Amino acid sequence: MRQIPFYCTHINGSFWGEKQRVSKNVTVDAVYDRFKETKRFEALKCNGEQQKNEGWHSHIFWDSDVAKWIEGVAYYLEENRDERLEAMTDALIDDMCASQKEDGYYNCYYNVYETDKRFTNRMNHELYCLGHLIEAATAYYHATGKDKLLTLVKKYLELIIRVFVKDGSAAFVTPGHEEIELALVKLYHTTGDRKYLDLSKFFIDSKGCNEKDKNHYANWTTPWYFQDQLPVREQTTAEGHSVRAMYLCAAMADLARECSDDALFSACEKIFRNVSEKRMYITGGVGSSRLGEAFTVDYDLPNETAYTETCATIGLALFCRRMYQIKPVGAYGDIAEIAMYNGSISGVSVNGDDFFYENPLRIEVKNHHKNPATAEKERYPITQRVKMFGCSCCPPNILRFIASIADFLYTDDAETLFVHQYINSETSFDGKTVKQITDYPSNGKVKIETSGYKNIALRVPSWCRNFRASEKYTMKDGYAYFTDISSVDIDFNIRPQFVASSSIHENIGKVALQYGPIVYCLEGVDNEGDIFSLYADLDADFEITPDPYFSLPVINCSGYEICENDALYYPADKRMFRPRKLKFIPYYGMENRGETDMTVWIPAK
Amino acid sequence: MRQIPFYCTHINGSFWGEKQRVSKNVTVDAVYDRFKETKRFEALKCNGEQQKNEGWHSHIFWDSDVAKWIEGVAYYLEENRDERLEAMTDALIDDMCASQKEDGYYNCYYNVYETDKRFTNRMNHELYCLGHLIEAATAYYHATGKDKLLTLVKKYLELIIRVFVKDGSAAFVTPGHEEIELALVKLYHTTGDRKYLDLSKFFIDSKGCNEKDKNHYANWTTPWYFQDQLPVREQTTAEGHSVRAMYLCAAMADLARECSDDALFSACEKIFRNVSEKRMYITGGVGSSRLGEAFTVDYDLPNETAYTETCATIGLALFCRRMYQIKPVGAYGDIAEIAMYNGSISGVSVNGDDFFYENPLRIEVKNHHKNPATAEKERYPITQRVKMFGCSCCPPNILRFIASIADFLYTDDAETLFVHQYINSETSFDGKTVKQITDYPSNGKVKIETSGYKNIALRVPSWCRNFRASEKYTMKDGYAYFTDISSVDIDFNIRPQFVASSSIHENIGKVALQYGPIVYCLEGVDNEGDIFSLYADLDADFEITPDPYFSLPVINCSGYEICENDALYYPADKRMFRPRKLKFIPYYGMENRGETDMTVWIPAK
Repeated sequence: MRQIPFYCTHINGSFWGEKQRVSKNVTVDAVYDRFKETKRFEALKCNGEQQKNEGWHSHIFWDSDVAKWIEGVAYYLEENRDERLEAMTDALIDDMCASQKEDGYYNCYYNVYETDKRFTNRMNHELYCLGHLIEAATAYYHATGKDKLLTLVKKYLELIIRVFVKDGSAAFVTPGHEEIELALVKLYHTTGDRKYLDLSKFFIDSKGCNEKDKNHYANWTTPWYFQDQLPVREQTTAEGHSVRAMYLCAAMADLARECSDDALFSACEKIFRNVSEKRMYITGGVGSSRLGEAFTVDYDLPNETAYTETCATIGLALFCRRMYQIKPVGAYGDIAEIAMYNGSISGVSVNGDDFFYENPLRIEVKNHHKNPATAEKERYPITQRVKMFGCSCCPPNILRFIASIADFLYTDDAETLFVHQYINSETSFDGKTVKQITDYPSNGKVKIETSGYKNIALRVPSWCRNFRASEKYTMKDGYAYFTDISSVDIDFNIRPQFVASSSIHENIGKVALQYGPIVYCLEGVDNEGDIFSLYADLDADFEITPDPYFSLPVINCSGYEICENDALYYPADKRMFRPRKLKFIPYYGMENRGETDMTVWIPAK
Repeated sequence: MRQIPFYCTHINGSFWGEKQRVSKNVTVDAVYDRFKETKRFEALKCNGEQQKNEGWHSHIFWDSDVAKWIEGVAYYLEENRDERLEAMTDALIDDMCASQKEDGYYNCYYNVYETDKRFTNRMNHELYCLGHLIEAATAYYHATGKDKLLTLVKKYLELIIRVFVKDGSAAFVTPGHEEIELALVKLYHTTGDRKYLDLSKFFIDSKGCNEKDKNHYANWTTPWYFQDQLPVREQTTAEGHSVRAMYLCAAMADLARECSDDALFSACEKIFRNVSEKRMYITGGVGSSRLGEAFTVDYDLPNETAYTETCATIGLALFCRRMYQIKPVGAYGDIAEIAMYNGSISGVSVNGDDFFYENPLRIEVKNHHKNPATAEKERYPITQRVKMFGCSCCPPNILRFIASIADFLYTDDAETLFVHQYINSETSFDGKTVKQITDYPSNGKVKIETSGYKNIALRVPSWCRNFRASEKYTMKDGYAYFTDISSVDIDFNIRPQFVASSSIHENIGKVALQYGPIVYCLEGVDNEGDIFSLYADLDADFEITPDPYFSLPVINCSGYEICENDALYYPADKRMFRPRKLKFIPYYGMENRGETDMTVWIPAK
C-alpha cells in the first residue's frame, strides 16, 4: 500500500478547511511572532557575545521549535507559494547554515555553550532537534525546491553516522528523545539514499539493549522514561514520556513497513492495543501523569490532572496513521480519528493564537484557588490557553499537524483506494482522482467519487452503530469493501451517543457524550449553577444545533440536576433529582470563552 | 454546666472498654519503646556532648511527644496506680527537671542548640511543647499527687509571662502552634491561679491582630496557616493547619466559658458550622490537604488523598466536647461522636501498636505503584499503619484520647444530668451517680440510672431516624429532656443506613454506609474482584454479624457489580449490572489485614 500524501489533496471548506484557514491566517504568524519575541530566531545565529550582551541564552530544544514552524509553513506553501513566508523562512535557514560548523554540526545551544560537550548528554535533545530539522528540510524542499536546509541536515548526518555508528565515539547510542528515527525515514523517501534508513534502523535496533545508554538516566528518570526498558521488539506496553513513546512507535511502524519487519510490526500492534485499550483518554489524550509527562499503568486516567500533552496526542495520530498505511484495520483509523478531532485540536483556541500544552478532561475552577494556608498550591493543568510556553513544542506541532491533515485520508494499492478518514476534498495522485463530498462530521453522509480505481474500501468508524451504503459491500477488519465500482454513497448515521467506561474507576457511573468521533463536554458558561451536580439522562432527546463558532453542532438535551441539600451528609433515600436542560459543546472548543468549569464525564441515571 | 471528668467514670467492657484494654496493655508500652529507641527520652537530658558522640540530635517537638505519653499514662493511673509506669514516668520528669534552666526555661532542643535563640522563631514549637507539658503535669499531679512536673511548668510559666506579656521581649506574640492556650485553662482549673487564664486570654486576644507575628511566616506559609488571618472573634471559617485550628477552637471555647465571652462563643459557633457543614469528612476527618496539613475550601474533601491527620480529628472532638459543655446542642455531640468512632481511632491498629498519621477514605493500591518512568511518584497517604513516624505526634495523642474518652459523657447542672455520649459505665461524682447499661453502638438500647438528679437530658444522635423512650420527654436542640425522673430506657434504633453527599463533587452518585455513628467501608480482602466496580443497592437487605476482631458488627448486604467490558469505552446503554454480595467493615478497622483496596464511598443504584 502507498500513502497518498496531503499535498495531493485540496480540502474544500467544511471543518478542516476552516481549521486550516485559521491555522494559516493566524497560527503561522502568531507562533512566528512569539518565537521572535523569545529570541528563538536570533538564537539561530549562535552569537554568544550578543546573547551575553542582551542577557539571554539559547536553549537545547529551540531548534526543534523553529523547525516545526518551518515544516508547518512548508505544508501551506505546497498549495500556494507565498513570498513573504518564504522570505521569513529563508532568513532562518540562512542563519542556521551560516552557523553550521565545518564538520557539519549544528545546534543553537551547543554551538554557543559547552562546545566541547557535544553528544555527551543524552537528555539534551541534539538528535531530537536534528530530527525536526530533517522533517522541516524535506518539507521545505518538496514545497519550494529549495535545498539549503536539506544540504545542512545531510552534511550534519554525515557527522552523526561517523560519531554514532562508525566510531561509536558519542557518549550514548540512542537519542534521549525519539524523533530523528521517523525523520530519517522521510529523508530516505526524499533522497532515496538508503543510509538514512539504515541509521534509523540502527537507532531502533540499539534501543534498550546497549550498555552505554544506561549511564544516561537523570536521577529522576528510569529506563521506562526513555522506552529503554526492553529492546523495542520485546515491548508490549506504552511506557514513559508519552511524546517520546509515540514518536518511537511511529518510527517503529515506518521501519516495519520499509523493512518488512514482522517482529517490529507485531510490537507496534501490541503497544497500539495497550494504548488504545488501556491507557488512552476518550479524547485520544495519552500520558496521564505530569511526572515524566508519562504513561503510568493501565486504566490510570484521572480527568482533572490529565497531563495529555497536545504533542502526545499528535504523536498517537502519527503512529496510528502509519499503522493503517501498513494494514487496513479499522481500530487504527478509529484512534487516529479520535486523536484528530479531540485531544490534539483542543490544544489550540478557536481563534488560532492561544494554546494548551496539557488537555484536562475536567476543570474545577475553585480547586485552582484552594488552600490559602500555603504558598505552594496543588498542581492542576492551566485553565486558559496561553500564547506561548517556556517549552513551546505544542504550538508549532499543532500547526504542522493541521496543515498536513490530509495525510490521514488515503492509501491505495494497484486496484483499491482505501479511505481512512472523511474530509470534504478533491485529490489527484498518480493519474488517479478521488472526490469526497461530505459535511462530515456535522453529519455522517459521504459521497466518494473516484477515477483510476477498481475497488473502494471505506473505514466504518467503531462508533457507528449502523450505516447505509448505496452499493453492496463486504466487511473486513472494520472496512467496507466495494468492488468494481467508481463511486459510492454512505451514511454513517451520526447520532449523539452516551459512552461509558467502567475500567477507569473515576468514570464508573458516568458517561461522556459523543457525536460521531467528536467528544463533547459541559461548560459552566453554558450551564447555570454547578455543572458537577448535573446528571445525564440515558434516554435523553437530543437537539443538534449548528454552531458557527465551534464549526460543529452544539447539543442540547434533557438531563437532571441534584436538588440542593443543606446537609453535608444526609440519608441516601432522600436524594432527589430535578429535570433540566443540559448544553454540550465539542470538547476541542473547551475553555474558549473565559475561565469556566468543564467536564467530559458526568454522572448518569 | 459542669463537666464530669473521665476519672469519675468506670467503663464496663463493651467497645470502649476493649479499646482502653488494648491501649493500656499494648499502646502505652509500644509508644514508650519507640520513643526510647528514637532517643526522645535521652533527649530530655539535654546533653549536647552525648548527642554529638552518639550521632543524633534532639528535635523541636520531641518534648510534646513525651508529654502526651505521660498524660496518657497518667489517665490510666487515675483508676489504678502502677509502680512500673510511675517509675518510668518519674525518671522522665527527673531528667526534665534536671535540665530546666535557672530562669525556668526548658526545651530539649533549645537547651542544647541555638541556646541564644529562644523565643525567636515562631515556627519552632516552644510554646506548643510547654502546652503539652502543662497538660501532662496537671494530669500526673491529679493521678498521683506528684507535683514535680507541675512545679517545672509553673516556674517556666513565670518566664513566659515575663517575656511575652510583661517585657514583650520575645520576637513574636502568639504561639506558632496553638496548644498552650487550652493547657493554661487546665492549669487554671488545677491551681485556681487566675494568671494562667489571663495568659491564655492574652494569647487568644493577641492572635491575628499584632504586628510582630507578621514577621514570622515561613516562605511557604501564609497567615491562614496559623489562623492569623483575622482576630479570632472575627473568624468564621476553619483555616490553615488543621490541628492548630482545632486546638485554637478548643481554647476559644474554654475561654468563652470561663470568661462568659459571647463574641468568642459566637466565633466558635460559626467555625463549628463551617467545619461540620462544609469542611469535614464523614469520618470526622478534617484538614483535607497535605499542603500545610490544612483546611482548604468548602466541600474540597478528596477521598484518596485525604490528609485528615489523626490529631486533627482528636482536636475536632476536643473542640466539640467543650462546645456541648457550654451549650447542649445536639450537633456538637453528633460531631464529637463521629470523630470518636471513626477518623480518630482509625489512627491506631486493632492490635494497638501500629498507627496512621493520615486517614484516607479511599485506598487504591495500584496507584501507589504507578509511574515507572520517574523516581518521583504521586504522593498518597501510606496504606499500612507503622510503629512510628518521624513526626510522631499521633500515637501518644490517640493514647491520651482513648484513656480519657469518658470525658465526653456528661455535664450537669444543679438539677439535670446531660448525657452526651453512650458508653456502658458507672459514674460517681460529687455525691451523685450515673449508670449506663448499654451495648451501644452494637445496638441502640441504653438504660440510664441516676441518683442525685431531678432531670435527665439525652442527646438524640442526628443519624437516628426514630427512637423509643420509656418515659415522656420534650425535645430541644437535639436533646430529649426527661423531667422528675431518675432512670430512663431509650432505644435509638440503630440500623444500617446509606448516606449521600451531593456537595462534595467526588461523592456525587455515591453513598457511604453508616451504622449508628459508625462509618463503614469496603475492603478488597473481604470482597473478591475490583471493589471499585461494586455498586450499593439502596434497597438492600442487611445482615448484621457481630465480629470480635473489630469489636463491632460487620455488615453483609446485597449489591451489584459491573459486568466486565473488554472495551475501554463503550455505548452507555450496554452497561450491565450483576447482583452480588457486599461485605462492609467498620472504617476504623481498615487496613488491619494486609495492604488492600479500601473505599468508604461507593456508587449506588
